[in-house]
Amino acid sequence: MNKAMSKVMDKEKLKDVQNQPDSRNIDIDKVGVKDIRYPIVVRDKANENQTTVANINMYVDLPHHFKGTHMSRFVEILNEHRGEITIEKFSDILSNMKERFSARTAHLEVEFPYFIEKTAPVSKSVGLMEYNCRFAGSIGEKDDFVLQVTVPVSTLCPCSKEISDRGAHNQRGTVTVAIRFTGFVWIEDLIEVIEKSASCPVYSLLKRTDEKFVTEQAYDNPKFVEDVVRDVATNLKEIEGVTWASIEAENLESIHNHSAYAFLEVKGD
Amino acid sequence: MNKAMSKVMDKEKLKDVQNQPDSRNIDIDKVGVKDIRYPIVVRDKANENQTTVANINMYVDLPHHFKGTHMSRFVEILNEHRGEITIEKFSDILSNMKERFSARTAHLEVEFPYFIEKTAPVSKSVGLMEYNCRFAGSIGEKDDFVLQVTVPVSTLCPCSKEISDRGAHNQRGTVTVAIRFTGFVWIEDLIEVIEKSASCPVYSLLKRTDEKFVTEQAYDNPKFVEDVVRDVATNLKEIEGVTWASIEAENLESIHNHSAYAFLEVKGD
Amino acid sequence: MNKAMSKVMDKEKLKDVQNQPDSRNIDIDKVGVKDIRYPIVVRDKANENQTTVANINMYVDLPHHFKGTHMSRFVEILNEHRGEITIEKFSDILSNMKERFSARTAHLEVEFPYFIEKTAPVSKSVGLMEYNCRFAGSIGEKDDFVLQVTVPVSTLCPCSKEISDRGAHNQRGTVTVAIRFTGFVWIEDLIEVIEKSASCPVYSLLKRTDEKFVTEQAYDNPKFVEDVVRDVATNLKEIEGVTWASIEAENLESIHNHSAYAFLEVKGD
Amino acid sequence: MNKAMSKVMDKEKLKDVQNQPDSRNIDIDKVGVKDIRYPIVVRDKANENQTTVANINMYVDLPHHFKGTHMSRFVEILNEHRGEITIEKFSDILSNMKERFSARTAHLEVEFPYFIEKTAPVSKSVGLMEYNCRFAGSIGEKDDFVLQVTVPVSTLCPCSKEISDRGAHNQRGTVTVAIRFTGFVWIEDLIEVIEKSASCPVYSLLKRTDEKFVTEQAYDNPKFVEDVVRDVATNLKEIEGVTWASIEAENLESIHNHSAYAFLEVKGD
Repeated sequence: MNKAMSKVMDKEKLKDVQNQPDSRNIDIDKVGVKDIRYPIVVRDKANENQTTVANINMYVDLPHHFKGTHMSRFVEILNEHRGEITIEKFSDILSNMKERFSARTAHLEVEFPYFIEKTAPVSKSVGLMEYNCRFAGSIGEKDDFVLQVTVPVSTLCPCSKEISDRGAHNQRGTVTVAIRFTGFVWIEDLIEVIEKSASCPVYSLLKRTDEKFVTEQAYDNPKFVEDVVRDVATNLKEIEGVTWASIEAENLESIHNHSAYAFLEVKGD
Repeated sequence: MNKAMSKVMDKEKLKDVQNQPDSRNIDIDKVGVKDIRYPIVVRDKANENQTTVANINMYVDLPHHFKGTHMSRFVEILNEHRGEITIEKFSDILSNMKERFSARTAHLEVEFPYFIEKTAPVSKSVGLMEYNCRFAGSIGEKDDFVLQVTVPVSTLCPCSKEISDRGAHNQRGTVTVAIRFTGFVWIEDLIEVIEKSASCPVYSLLKRTDEKFVTEQAYDNPKFVEDVVRDVATNLKEIEGVTWASIEAENLESIHNHSAYAFLEVKGD
Repeated sequence: MNKAMSKVMDKEKLKDVQNQPDSRNIDIDKVGVKDIRYPIVVRDKANENQTTVANINMYVDLPHHFKGTHMSRFVEILNEHRGEITIEKFSDILSNMKERFSARTAHLEVEFPYFIEKTAPVSKSVGLMEYNCRFAGSIGEKDDFVLQVTVPVSTLCPCSKEISDRGAHNQRGTVTVAIRFTGFVWIEDLIEVIEKSASCPVYSLLKRTDEKFVTEQAYDNPKFVEDVVRDVATNLKEIEGVTWASIEAENLESIHNHSAYAFLEVKGD
Repeated sequence: MNKAMSKVMDKEKLKDVQNQPDSRNIDIDKVGVKDIRYPIVVRDKANENQTTVANINMYVDLPHHFKGTHMSRFVEILNEHRGEITIEKFSDILSNMKERFSARTAHLEVEFPYFIEKTAPVSKSVGLMEYNCRFAGSIGEKDDFVLQVTVPVSTLCPCSKEISDRGAHNQRGTVTVAIRFTGFVWIEDLIEVIEKSASCPVYSLLKRTDEKFVTEQAYDNPKFVEDVVRDVATNLKEIEGVTWASIEAENLESIHNHSAYAFLEVKGD
């Protein structure tokens, strides 16, 4: 055993620097821990729940009269809620943060890969598709919860199809949609809306019959990034309770070394 | 020569799909090109100007009655302004974008590494420090220009220093400051304000005498991320014309595998 | 239902382009799928096993007389072994790949975050630490298996401590060790060897008494990256069966904006 | 002026910890600085030279009897060669490193974006294309120099074209080729060999007539990643003096969320 250990004073005797008063008279909007990697369990439409690994940020505000924040408490709160970081529990965790820090506001951001079994269109082969998801919630001045998913899709260029004698350039793109809503929204339902707004969905497992099918489906549904964001905006109406959305489409253009990009914000009524 | 080429029709005869009317009745906030890499020249306080390599995004709005945007025009505009992408020329480029696309709004984002010769505190050895900079401008509904720099710094933990019999944990951190301002602000001046708000600046070249100096300087100036953002907020008053600022400090904690983080927004009067 | 679907021909009638002969007379060393994200289960010393999310590459060789590879088979093999991608099963999966593709060689690379409960040195608080791990195996010309872990650590500069009147610069570093071995090696044991070769381990949860402890422990154990790789090389002897190792240490220097780096290869007897 | 400065002892009196003897009896293969960002000038076939920004690693070996390396010397050497980091000067810099550190071996790695003006195939519009390049050299046990470029290309799937009634999936891919050679090789010539081995090159600026042309060119030249690496291997013979090559092709598949990958090593005669 390290001899340094025996010299450690009692916790009570160690000065609490963070709790000291501060005279600069400046409130801090957010202070906390960033980029904590943590295993979490997420509710899953098909299998009740799934285990994944998240990247987590946790912040509270700091009134001007305090010098610092006790950062270790964030990790303690995370540990107390281990295994139950779900949309439903989000406000509990936020309340816990607000109370423990005597803060006015609390913010929690959780980003994670989410897997869904996806059936190929013809062969009916099943593969696992990964989607990047993000929950971001705040309480305090105003309560807020935003659900975001990033969905890889296939897009085929309408201009290229129209002007070319054969073929049409197409590529992988990503569509990122963030929504605010009342009630409950399944990640799966939001992904479905996005996938049907592209030229064709992307799969992890496709047999030859499927490859023929998706090639022709994309060719029959040419879409600019402009079309994708507009069609997502339209199709989002199928999801009940959506009050706000930001919709972003980016194409890893197959004929360029840069991306084509479109962004649209849908404000609630 | 590829025989496909002989079949290429005249440009006039190729259908302009982007110009077709659109009936979905949805305006698009931003459409354009993203992640174009491009060599640029930036004004430099010491040497008049420096050549660097930027990552560029260019967007305009798209009214609901048009189907698409002519993406190649963005690259043409960039080419026309090659060698003169500076803070001063920003509004010219934006006006050019707005006009060429008959758009209501135009957005230009340019991010690049910027190098400054920095003199070591004791040996006076000179090294080149890299700082990440970003210009983001918009015209249309409201004109806007934001200058952002990310500065690597050294921070030493006040709590660790206070409670430990010897030493104190310290680490590399980054401070990201974005400002709006009237008049002109040198990147160099903004960096200076940030560097003096940390425990100690970071250098590319330090001799042994310098290493002793910066070690002791950091030990004598312990700072939490909370202190750093507050001190930047205070020191920013030295730069004339700043009307708004967002200040972010992140520590790559040397005792943890996650970051400590603080964020502060300074609203103008 | 999409009408394109009704036109899909039977699988038998779709031409198998990959199986066509190739006349360029060039063997390909590795062909396959890269960056598949996939949930996996890994053996865990404390809890039997843990679920995590991997990044997977799968390759086989392709003899010169074949034009292409049936990429979907890689994903099918992955699906068949779902839930059992462990060190022990690695050679089964590789054999399966080799056989299914009639290949001479097969390669499988699996990279994933791995979590271990770690107890703080004084308060005995428990936190979850993340380590990046990688399994890489091959069969064919020569059978091979390499286990790699990347461990975040704290390092304190011996020179800075020696020459300064107070304090010493320290920082987060990463140590990446890859080993070949006979028998079985726990990831946990390899991590332990690495952590004790640094100035101090890194934790996810530290209370004030712990912070004092680790600050002083690092100050009492100053190490250059050179020391870290040498001490790992020495301490690795505690793990039975290691026949080869590559050892890499990188410091995110707190006084510079670049890294200090050392690399060492240990060849077996 | 900081009062700490007055306390700084003369350089002569500061103990040289790195120069102390080491008793662990372990040689270190590589020790040095990593990820230094630095502006460099590279020889350019069209314009004599171009300024860009590099990421640089510099290493030497460290014999077992020395404790550490004087890291600041690497940055000093870099500063001395500022403005002349070219293929031709590489061995001078390496010799300088070897001598200054009294090392047996020295390694220098320089990675940078490189821009070439590229003319669109029909409209003859000119745009700037970015390519990622890397020089890696060593002297000592054996002298070595490797030139590497990563080229974005367009690939169209032969299987998809064959089995589909209309269209064919295509995507952006990257081809990374590293070569050893005698004499001198232009980066531009290596890029040309790679671009003609894909289904179609990628451009930064294409007008509508060009878009038609490249769409049809890609459709007329379907290539698997397997075809791309084989065709690069064949076409490399046009470059005089190549003695070794590694060829890697990766497709950002437009129908999947993972990449297709092929790798080939060409050994010299």
